[in-house]
Amino acid sequence: MPLLDVTLESIQAARTRIAGRVRRTPVLASAALDALAGARLYFKCENFQEAGAFKARGATNAVFALAPAELRGGVVTHSSGNHGAAVARAAQLRGVAARVVMPEGCSPAKLRAVRDYGGEVLLCAPTLAAREAMAAQLAAQFGAAFIHPYDDPQVIAGQGTIALELLEELPDLDWLLCPVGGGGLVSGLAVAAKALRPAIRVAAVEPAGADDAHRSFVSGVLAPPPLPVTIADGLRGALSARTFELIRRHVDDVVTVSEAAIVHAMRTLWQQLKIVVEASSAVPYAAVLERRLELRGARVGIVLTGGNVDLDALPWARCADR
Amino acid sequence: MPLLDVTLESIQAARTRIAGRVRRTPVLASAALDALAGARLYFKCENFQEAGAFKARGATNAVFALAPAELRGGVVTHSSGNHGAAVARAAQLRGVAARVVMPEGCSPAKLRAVRDYGGEVLLCAPTLAAREAMAAQLAAQFGAAFIHPYDDPQVIAGQGTIALELLEELPDLDWLLCPVGGGGLVSGLAVAAKALRPAIRVAAVEPAGADDAHRSFVSGVLAPPPLPVTIADGLRGALSARTFELIRRHVDDVVTVSEAAIVHAMRTLWQQLKIVVEASSAVPYAAVLERRLELRGARVGIVLTGGNVDLDALPWARCADR
Repeated sequence: MPLLDVTLESIQAARTRIAGRVRRTPVLASAALDALAGARLYFKCENFQEAGAFKARGATNAVFALAPAELRGGVVTHSSGNHGAAVARAAQLRGVAARVVMPEGCSPAKLRAVRDYGGEVLLCAPTLAAREAMAAQLAAQFGAAFIHPYDDPQVIAGQGTIALELLEELPDLDWLLCPVGGGGLVSGLAVAAKALRPAIRVAAVEPAGADDAHRSFVSGVLAPPPLPVTIADGLRGALSARTFELIRRHVDDVVTVSEAAIVHAMRTLWQQLKIVVEASSAVPYAAVLERRLELRGARVGIVLTGGNVDLDALPWARCADR
Repeated sequence: MPLLDVTLESIQAARTRIAGRVRRTPVLASAALDALAGARLYFKCENFQEAGAFKARGATNAVFALAPAELRGGVVTHSSGNHGAAVARAAQLRGVAARVVMPEGCSPAKLRAVRDYGGEVLLCAPTLAAREAMAAQLAAQFGAAFIHPYDDPQVIAGQGTIALELLEELPDLDWLLCPVGGGGLVSGLAVAAKALRPAIRVAAVEPAGADDAHRSFVSGVLAPPPLPVTIADGLRGALSARTFELIRRHVDDVVTVSEAAIVHAMRTLWQQLKIVVEASSAVPYAAVLERRLELRGARVGIVLTGGNVDLDALPWARCADR
């Protein structure tokens, strides 16, 4: 498969394919947050997406893009987070089996989400090598189709559908901001957004504690995977050659934010928008708060990527005085 | 003023009056919550309302219903919660002064909300008598119009606009559920809902620890104010003669729920709907979870009243293991 086979057309096809199978999510705004930012902020709420995260888009597109013959052995993926549940859900909709390789020690809520959608969980050692090896072995054993969390043109095209919806609703956005981990989301968004609105600027925001995308973007050479140290557990992945190339071509900037800024941003979004978003979702808004981009007076679309949070372990929690 | 001057017409007039000054709030649903309940649940999200609660409706209607001559001395109210901020905001929109009597020891966030909308806070002893006395004194001193938190036909009519929106979107609801404290919300909702759809059943839900509405409804005699013991701080008020009479005429049932059920319901709403709602908001859903009403197979509208929460003191918080 060629490296850059993600196009406006493949994203539009994805939108048709996933229509009725994922939600068109609402856009929220807040006068208080606008005043704080000195800009107009439009939050695309993928925390309200099926299975609680934008991952439902890419996974559903990938599963439904496969031919019946490719699905005889079901699908397999590896994931420590939202992609696993999204693949299990898409497989259930398609009526095929899903096997999800997850690292030992991952959160019980994440395991339960996969199982609730009828997926089979297979635990492995908590390393990328172990995950990839077990997924490859399962794919071979069952003749299952492997669906990578981000290094897959159909997954990327699915994530790109967010930009179609957002620009349909807000055609004159100046900026589009999203977090970056493996790069599937920002790749799809940027391809769609630049095709529809060449003047738009697209920025990816990354935790400073997992900054391989930033280092790769600045140096022009794909950096080795980081040893991530960040609360934003959805952003611990590393760019692939494919997503790096898409980012080089279509993304205007990649900036980083501190852990403190992420927690503060997350809390501010909860407080002001009255929504539950996970730490990874708050990363682009942290860049707004830390003034990492020149957004004054601009109209800024921000993708809030998901809302799957352990409510018993909020990062600002302290002992309740009871 | 006659006791029962809240009608479908006054509620429709309220809707026209507040249009563009408050939000039409979205309705959320969840297949997971429907499965849990064995019913179709439609959550009217007043947590997304201006100032974070449905109180903006009644306060805005009351302030804008006054003649300019009545507003020369501004407005005054007493409130320990969302009504104070809502009145301050409405007065700011109308360009008149707002004085809000608040009890000493109330939350700093609530004080700040009033001041952020340009309201003047006046602290008093934390008793109902002290609040009422100070508000009456201020009204006399400044020639200000007093806006009661719930015992006011225009406030009640404003709250009733929620039912107009909900039944417009979902005309065949079987049930409408909301919490009850002072009774302004359920009175307005019930008048509107029964006028538009006589077959609908309206239920008010109350914390068992502040059950004066339940006792009044069952006995047919207005019960004395309770000594409320409940986490649902928006529901500590007592019915007035006016709201009691409206409830007797238009409400089908008043049921109570336990504190444990309220906390569980609140957490479940956050987890499943990915929204921030305050404890008072979760009270009607607690009745669904506790099977306090026969809702099997029914289409149920539930008003989520507000989202003003102290994120540092969540009722399920325990010490984070960090």
